Amino acid sequence: MISVVIKAGAITLEQRDRPIPGPHEALIRVLMAGICNTDLELLKGYMNFSGVPGHEFVGWVESAPSRPELVGKRVVGDINIGFGPGDHRHAPDRTVLGILGKDGAFAQYLTLPVWNCHLVPDSVDDQTAVFAEPLAAALEVGQQVHIRAGDRVAVLGDGKLGVLIALALRHLCPGVILVGKHPDKLGIAAAQGVHTALAGEISGPFDVVVEATGRPEGITSAMALVRDEGTIVLKSTTEAASCLDISRIVVREITLVGSRCGDTALALDHLAHGLVDPSGLVEAVLPFEEVEEAFRLAARPGARKVLVRMG
Amino acid sequence: MISVVIKAGAITLEQRDRPIPGPHEALIRVLMAGICNTDLELLKGYMNFSGVPGHEFVGWVESAPSRPELVGKRVVGDINIGFGPGDHRHAPDRTVLGILGKDGAFAQYLTLPVWNCHLVPDSVDDQTAVFAEPLAAALEVGQQVHIRAGDRVAVLGDGKLGVLIALALRHLCPGVILVGKHPDKLGIAAAQGVHTALAGEISGPFDVVVEATGRPEGITSAMALVRDEGTIVLKSTTEAASCLDISRIVVREITLVGSRCGDTALALDHLAHGLVDPSGLVEAVLPFEEVEEAFRLAARPGARKVLVRMG
Repeated sequence: MISVVIKAGAITLEQRDRPIPGPHEALIRVLMAGICNTDLELLKGYMNFSGVPGHEFVGWVESAPSRPELVGKRVVGDINIGFGPGDHRHAPDRTVLGILGKDGAFAQYLTLPVWNCHLVPDSVDDQTAVFAEPLAAALEVGQQVHIRAGDRVAVLGDGKLGVLIALALRHLCPGVILVGKHPDKLGIAAAQGVHTALAGEISGPFDVVVEATGRPEGITSAMALVRDEGTIVLKSTTEAASCLDISRIVVREITLVGSRCGDTALALDHLAHGLVDPSGLVEAVLPFEEVEEAFRLAARPGARKVLVRMG
Repeated sequence: MISVVIKAGAITLEQRDRPIPGPHEALIRVLMAGICNTDLELLKGYMNFSGVPGHEFVGWVESAPSRPELVGKRVVGDINIGFGPGDHRHAPDRTVLGILGKDGAFAQYLTLPVWNCHLVPDSVDDQTAVFAEPLAAALEVGQQVHIRAGDRVAVLGDGKLGVLIALALRHLCPGVILVGKHPDKLGIAAAQGVHTALAGEISGPFDVVVEATGRPEGITSAMALVRDEGTIVLKSTTEAASCLDISRIVVREITLVGSRCGDTALALDHLAHGLVDPSGLVEAVLPFEEVEEAFRLAARPGARKVLVRMG
């Protein structure tokens, strides 16, 4: 099968053998995969990754001996893989689909433990289902921090993740404000009733600031906007480390909360019930033959989500 | 009156006028004051401080027109000063006794709003009462983070603050472990039933790690000992900024909590009921005439609390 491979900071297409599923794995034909900023960071060297990227996907189950009811159905997946069922997001020996020790979704086939597979309701189309993984990461903010309706909440960064976080949080806190630099992207959230503001035209203090700019300097903006004793949720994983004046965090008694992947079932539920509509986030859907062009498109500054139809 | 003055990184003794209390201030004759690591950081340039240092004190009220019942009594004080009663720890226009815009306790007299004064029970002697301020800062950890009896909790740093934190937390969590480099200082906590360990001889993971080493690199040790999804409480204020790999905080979903001053009344209650006995922390008690020697003694690596009898 044809696979996209990241090697030494570049993307190549390689002919590889179809993966052989382990005893409790499903063999999944990938229908659609999305390009995440993390994939672009992998290309820059993040995680010293080499292999097949891709962790946002929807696929069709070809075989699943230990869970036959999956066969012939569409699934999305929990990307953190450990031994047996359960939450492996922090298992020390985990692999992570398309990120750490496990080939991902930019190939015709992937394998995944059956416990990691979630059936996609018929009402959710492929283009929507592929957002289950990033939406789960967005919903994780509300799982970690108790956000109440009256809180003053700002989400920094109008990239794909920032928009999804604002769309997810608005059901907890109708006054949430998405702060960014791109009127067109802010408009995606505004169309679903989210308050928006241009960076530089907003002042705090906020009870909760979600830092989703994807830039090392985003933490500085977050510190300027959060109130004393407030909370900053950190969402950006970048290759560069940030310098932080820890004394300011101590004196102002700020809480910083690192936040990563979330609950795929909860995200699917949100998508199935129309609580979050990610369609405005799609930049383009390209066929697999144009996957290299898709990565180029996704790497353009300001690009929205680029999806690749694999099968 | 004679005052200790920090100016351009040095300590001098100056003859100054006795301060004139404002309309809602008490005039307090200082009985005893303690030298805090923060005072030593002020000497190095922290907060660009110039003036009279000293924020750990017990004093005798000479006048307090708006709260006459204080007169002739011993008090300790909330060091964060704002307008009117209430919690001014984060008031944007606050002054802080001996730290920010308000002369402190290393002088014969100080003034403080009457609302900031707490009567010291007769059963608490001067040498114990002067620990109210640092003990309040230690108790603040348990006010910010819900620490339960079964949690795995480590306190890093066997300095004065670290020992006080361990002594304070052991009532919430009997298994708390104080981690340090000095067997004699660990012994102060061990004598009150706290588990101790030498740094390098302890391995995690811990649910909660309190970073009280006073060193910029303490955060690195804390990150190595805390579990994924665990909490690090930051207690060190140092002049140097720390470089933090924010991606590791995000991927491991660590929570960092900045922690500073606490509740003076709660600390006094602990001291009055013998819940925490700070006597083992005293390095020396010097008369005011030897205050410069006291600062030299306090600055020695490994020094415990140096107290100065002012009156």
